[in-house]
This record gives sequence, C-alpha cells and structure tokens, in this order.
Amino acid sequence: LTPLYGESITGGVGHQIIPHLLPAKNGEEATIQFLLEVVEILTNYVRKTFDRSTKVLDFHHPHQLLEGMEGFNLELSDQPESLEQILVDCRDTLKYGVRTGHPRFFNQLSTGLDIIGLAGEWLTSTANTNMFTYEIAPVFVLMEQLTLKKMREMIGWPDGEGDGLFSPGGAISNMYSVMIARYKYFPEVKTKGMSAAPRLVLFTSEHSHYSIKKAGAALGFGTENVILLSTDERGRVIPADLEAKILDAKQKGYVPLFVNATAGSTVYGAFDPIHEIADICEKYNLWLHVDGAWGGGLLMSRKHRHKLSGVERANSVTWNPHKMMGVPLQCSAILVREKGIMGGCNSMCAGYLFQPDKQYDVTYDTGDKAIQCGRHVDIFKFWLMWKAKGTIGFEQHIDKCLDLSQYLYNKIKNREGYQMVQNTYRQEKLHRVAPKIKPQGNKVNFFRMVVSNPAATQSDIDFLIDEIERLGQDL
Amino acid sequence: LTPLYGESITGGVGHQIIPHLLPAKNGEEATIQFLLEVVEILTNYVRKTFDRSTKVLDFHHPHQLLEGMEGFNLELSDQPESLEQILVDCRDTLKYGVRTGHPRFFNQLSTGLDIIGLAGEWLTSTANTNMFTYEIAPVFVLMEQLTLKKMREMIGWPDGEGDGLFSPGGAISNMYSVMIARYKYFPEVKTKGMSAAPRLVLFTSEHSHYSIKKAGAALGFGTENVILLSTDERGRVIPADLEAKILDAKQKGYVPLFVNATAGSTVYGAFDPIHEIADICEKYNLWLHVDGAWGGGLLMSRKHRHKLSGVERANSVTWNPHKMMGVPLQCSAILVREKGIMGGCNSMCAGYLFQPDKQYDVTYDTGDKAIQCGRHVDIFKFWLMWKAKGTIGFEQHIDKCLDLSQYLYNKIKNREGYQMVQNTYRQEKLHRVAPKIKPQGNKVNFFRMVVSNPAATQSDIDFLIDEIERLGQDL
Repeated sequence: LTPLYGESITGGVGHQIIPHLLPAKNGEEATIQFLLEVVEILTNYVRKTFDRSTKVLDFHHPHQLLEGMEGFNLELSDQPESLEQILVDCRDTLKYGVRTGHPRFFNQLSTGLDIIGLAGEWLTSTANTNMFTYEIAPVFVLMEQLTLKKMREMIGWPDGEGDGLFSPGGAISNMYSVMIARYKYFPEVKTKGMSAAPRLVLFTSEHSHYSIKKAGAALGFGTENVILLSTDERGRVIPADLEAKILDAKQKGYVPLFVNATAGSTVYGAFDPIHEIADICEKYNLWLHVDGAWGGGLLMSRKHRHKLSGVERANSVTWNPHKMMGVPLQCSAILVREKGIMGGCNSMCAGYLFQPDKQYDVTYDTGDKAIQCGRHVDIFKFWLMWKAKGTIGFEQHIDKCLDLSQYLYNKIKNREGYQMVQNTYRQEKLHRVAPKIKPQGNKVNFFRMVVSNPAATQSDIDFLIDEIERLGQDL
Repeated sequence: LTPLYGESITGGVGHQIIPHLLPAKNGEEATIQFLLEVVEILTNYVRKTFDRSTKVLDFHHPHQLLEGMEGFNLELSDQPESLEQILVDCRDTLKYGVRTGHPRFFNQLSTGLDIIGLAGEWLTSTANTNMFTYEIAPVFVLMEQLTLKKMREMIGWPDGEGDGLFSPGGAISNMYSVMIARYKYFPEVKTKGMSAAPRLVLFTSEHSHYSIKKAGAALGFGTENVILLSTDERGRVIPADLEAKILDAKQKGYVPLFVNATAGSTVYGAFDPIHEIADICEKYNLWLHVDGAWGGGLLMSRKHRHKLSGVERANSVTWNPHKMMGVPLQCSAILVREKGIMGGCNSMCAGYLFQPDKQYDVTYDTGDKAIQCGRHVDIFKFWLMWKAKGTIGFEQHIDKCLDLSQYLYNKIKNREGYQMVQNTYRQEKLHRVAPKIKPQGNKVNFFRMVVSNPAATQSDIDFLIDEIERLGQDL
C-alpha cells in the first residue's frame, strides 16, 4: 500500500505530488484496496466491542492525549501523511475512544451498535447526498416520507396524516415544535418579529430536557418566559400546577402558548400524564408538544405504549430513534399533526433551489420546510433497520430493555448497601435505577442506569452490580 | 448468509426469532460476514461512480419509485425481511440514487467522493458516539478543538484564538452567528426575550443565502427586519448601500445589529468586499459575520485567499468544508473571534450532563455552548482528510477547481450559441458560468456550473459542453 497514486495537479504551488486517493488515474484498485484495509480495522473493532473482556474505555486526560500517546499525533500540518500512517491514525482513534456498543456500556441514552444500522450508515456516507430536494435524493426522500407516516400512524394521528422531518437531534426537534406553535398562533412573528406578539409563555416540567429552555432563549421568548412545572414524587408533571401557572400568567397579562409534556425524562425516565395535560391545553387553547426523544420508542411496544397514552392528542411530537430504538446517531424526528404548517413556518421561497417549474412533482422537495438548507441523510439506517427487524423486532427490543431494567431493579431493591433514589420506582420501570453509592458522604450522588443496548444481558447487569460493590469497597 | 443468528428474546410478544444481527450469541462471524457483503456492494458502487460510462442518475418520478421499481419495495412492515433481501435493498437504494461523486456531476455545491473522507465517515459511524462531552468522545473532541484552531489561524485571528463548533450545516452556523451577535449586544434577550431589546435589524445581500432570513424569522427578529442590500453587476454588496440603509434604519429608530458579508454567494459565487463592509461595521459598532459556507475553502489557497481579504476583521465566520473542500456531508463550522461567548450565549447549566465535579478538565466539554444536546461527530472525516492531504493538498484541490472553472469559461465565452449571464465573469472566476440555453424562449434560464469535484477533469468539461449542445439541438 504505497501513497503514490495521486496525480500531479497543475495550478497548485509547485508540482508536488500529493498522495490523495482521488482523482486516482488508473488507481481505482488501490482506492478499493485502501478502503478494504480500513474495513479490516473497523471489523476488528466491531468484534472486540462485543467481547466482554475488552475495556469500555481506556481513559486518558486531555493533556495526555494532546501530548501524543505512543506517537498518536493529533496535530494537523502542511504536509501530507502516508496512507500507512492514515491507517495507524484510524486504529489510534478507535483505541482511545469509548466503545459505545459494548454490552457493559450503560452511560448514555444512545448505546449499542446495531449492525444493520451500521451498514446503513456506511451506505449513507457512500451515497454522500443531501435531503433538500427529490432530485438529489429521490430514494431517501421517499423513505423519509414513508417512515414519518408510519411513525405518525403509531402516534395515532388519523391515517398517519401530518407533517414532519428528521432533524439533527432532539434539541433541534424541540426547537421546531416551539417555532411551529408560534407560527400557528402568531404567524405575523415570522415577518415582524416577536414585538408583533404579546408576551408569550411556554410551560415545561422542571425535569424536562434543557432544550426547551434553549429554544426559549434562541427563539426570542427569553428563559424567564419558560415556566417550569412542579412534579410529583415520581418526577411527573402535576397537572393542577400547570393550570395554576397558566391562570397566573394570564392574570399577569401574558399569553400562554405552548406546553411540553415529556415522555421519558432524561434523568428519571418519567412520563408526564399526557391526557390530563391535553385536557388543559384544549381548555386554554394551547399547543401541546410531547418530547418523546427518549420514550417515543415505547410506541413500538404493545405492552408499554400505554405510558404515552394521550400522545395522539399532541400537536407535535419529538421522537429519537437514535435513543431507545438503537438506531445509530443521529436520527431524530419532529412530527406535526397539521399538514403543511412546517412549510408555512419555515419557507423563504428560495427560487434557485426550489424551482416550481421542475419536471417532477416538487411537493416532494423538503428543503423549504426545514430551518436547514443542506440536510444529512438520517433516514436510511433507520429504514433499513425497520426492514430487517420489522415493527415486531423493534417491539421485542423495547420489551427486552424494559425487562432488563426490571431485572436490575429487582436485584438491588433489597440488596444491602443500595438505596433507590426514588422509592416509587415500580411505576416507572422504564430505565431509572439510582443507587446512592456514597451513603457516608454529605453529597447525594447516584448512578443513572440506562438500558438501551440490545447487546446487554442479565449477566451484564450482574457484572455491573458486583463492580459497583467492588469499587465501593475502597471508599 | 442465512437470517438465523438472532436469539429468541423473552418478554416480547410470542417467541418468534427475529433475524437481527445483535445481540448475536456466538454469531460474531456471521455479523462480520454480513458487513463484508455490504462492503462489496459499496466498493462496487465506488468503482462505478468513477467510471464515466456510468450514468449520474437513472431518473424516476416519485410515483414510479413508490409503485415499486422491479420489486424495490419502499414500504415498511411488521415482519422482518431476510438478510438477503436487506442486501438487495442496499443495491436498489444505490441504483436509483444520484452518483454525487461522478466526475460529470456538477449540480450541487457538494460534489465528489473523497475516499479518505469516506473512510473517515465509516469509522465515525462505527464509533457511534456524541460530541457533547469529553468523556464520551475524548479523541473527537480534541480533534475538533485543534481543527477549529487551525481554521481560525487561516482566518487570521491572533494565535487562532476564539471559539467555535461544528454544526449540522451552514444554515445552522449562520443562525449561531445571529444569536451570538444578539447576545453580545443585548445579553438580556436570553432571559427576557426580544421584548427587552429595541427593534433590531440585520443586513445581508440580496444575493446572500436564504438562511440569514430564516434565522431572522426563527430567532424572533422577523424577516422584515432583515434588510437586503443591493449588489453591483457582479453580485457583490455595494458598501454605500449598506451605509445608507444603516442610516435609514437609525433614523427610523431601529437599532442596526448585524451585517452578513457573503464569501462565495450561492448562485453567482460572488465575494462581498469585506474590508469596506468591516469599515462600516466598525464605524457603527455592528457585528460582522462572513458567510463563507461556499467560499471559505479559498482560505486554504495562497493564490485565491485574497478574495476573502478582510475576513480577519469579522466577528464570526461560517465555513463549510463539505462544500468546496470536498469533505463528505455534513461538515460545517461556525467560528467566533471572541472566546467564551458561545457558552455565555447558549449555556443552560444542565447539571446532570455537564457536571463541574467530574474528574477531568470539564472545559473540554462542548455541549453547553451548542444549541444541540447530542451532536454528531462531523470532525473525524475532515481531520483525517487534512492529515492525508496536508494543508498543501487542500490548496491544490482548490486551485485545481478554480483552474477548471477558468478553463470552462475560456471554452464557452466565444463559442457560438452560448452567452454568459454575466459578462463580467473574469472578476469572479470562482465557479459561476451560466449559459442561457434557450435563447429563443421567453424565459431566462441558465446553467449554474459548480466545480468542486476533485475527480473532474478538462475532458469532463468538454463532455459537458458538447452534451449541452447535443441536447439543445432538439429545442
């Protein structure tokens, strides 16, 4: 493997030959050879990821990595490296990273390494295209449309009708929901700005994801106008508190606009009571958004979808398949019940891109309803996983994760040395198990356990508990 | 390759065996085997992409693809498909898509298929992690930090100091710039909303990207407060018009806040005169943003970087390596001169995620300065390409693209049947060549030619011109 199949480029400085792989005149075989060497590195990594004797992470501090671990040089330079060195760089990058697919990795809401999803991502990057128009991504645009419709059907909106997009993550999806709500009630804000509206307020749980507050700040509402709702002992919004705060806001002359109900909160895994919140939203004519970034996946399970009961009454829903459903990052959907409103909210009629005189049905172009212009293809891996598992496969994955979390709960609830941070856990068996590990300390710290990795088994839960005890011995 | 290495999952409905690949008890070899079959499909696709006898696109209308071309069924169902069928789906997906890496694909600002970049994306999806904290992406977080610093050095900010992030695209990067400008001058908007500020106005070229207007709408300024600036015959902002419009706004009692100068406009490839605009911004104390989503790559070329002269005076810069530099989608940077301001603007102090009592230097955590929570790893492919090419390789790539566009210009400027839409093209040889192809029609239509594909050669330009003539015969 020698770095010699670049071609001399005229017009650059000097006539040095740079070993880039493309354009590779008559060098296609070397190009493919290089890719296959990378694939070997990657498949070795995949093999080891599922090997429980491998560490999840070989931790180093920033200064250690920056100083160059065993020759791993992160600095960029003017001169090219050889392809051999590029392969070494690839190995080192994986070596010092986190094995998020490891069966004993429980730290994040996104864990696991689904092989079909991975294959989907490899194909996506090979296709290297963009979601903004049908003509540049015909297959992916249709896949997105069909998949969003399926998701809306699972939410329970009639005939799966409505609107939606895949966005670069739950925070952006939640931001969309606030923008669309504002456009629904105060469309003139689009042209005239927030000064054209009265003082608008948003409501969300004190335990909700911080992205609602970020949206409030970014979109010009101000964080003071994001009213936090009190929760019960299980971390769920108290509907009476919502109504009281709506009345309080109205009395002050503010205009309640939007309520976010969380389906699967970030730390507690709590599900807000959507039906009761929807009743209040209807009574006061407010937009109801359900942030199901984490818990949306439960809609795939006949056994557990009741936790989102009432979601069909929402005006919009955030649902991240890249969390509990195990789809590789990034894969987040914003779904909206009213068809066409996203275009109304976000279109700027960029004629050069979204030409109405194209020779195909331009209603398939999605760019004008996004806040993005170019948009990464996040749909294919998800579509491919759905094909491979069927709805029934996602259901089994969800059911298994919840069974495992129940198993963990059962194991530690009466075990000496552990305490549940919430003693009412039975009601929210989604994923939250939070043992205090420093009962002698003055700080309440705890483990948040997340079970979303399809590779995790009961023995991994056993290992984890033993490991916490082993490490706790030294405290 | 048989779909039989799933395991029965308890707790699901029934005991059906779903052929998902993970968890794959003792099935690692089958897992790897499947990945290698996918890789074969992908490498065949790569080979064909660079074969000029292959079509760029085999176009079908939406209804044709939805009806199922030759058995290609896009619909999702409850039941799983076999792995053999999954491989067929992968082949079909590529078959009906656009070969954006084809040497004769000139349609979008992002073209080409860089093999090192592709390898980088494959590794990124295998690592499947998230940029929000150092602990979950130690290597990638450091790579991002070092790369952003290099980019700031190329902009010309002292010692490469400042702030920045990779965002999901140029539109979001531009949105960041407006948010940060607002925070700089009216920090109280973060908590109190737009009503705490006077009527703020933004300025941008009539030829600028529509994302500035989208940001104006989304962030609560209103599109009417995005003032469009007139351009000269080459599509460049007229500085005197900017000053006149600033004065006009002030006279009306509005407060000018932000000016966007475009470095490489979307349709004309025009470069606004940054120095003259910067003079005006300094005079009136306005935030200067340079949208170099398209043209930023020219900073890598000693020959062409003068087109962005003055960029070092900007307060913020958008620069998309996924455009002219040929990095796979998505890869867009927002760069800010003032250090720490992004955190001030966007932090919400989500204690559960960005715990200050972690056991490493938490200033490396990036999540609190983003509007996203989870953030896709966009850095690795770019970092790896930079390693492989060196700065000098990017320079040669840029120089080659601009040489090719000059070649195209020279070929058609005096050719019968072609007319330049702008006869002053010489001054903006970046990429825009726009022949009218229907001189007898009543509509002015034209080809926008984009040269960013490293695989394109002079012979491809020749082919294109001949092809336009050949197709034009029938009109």
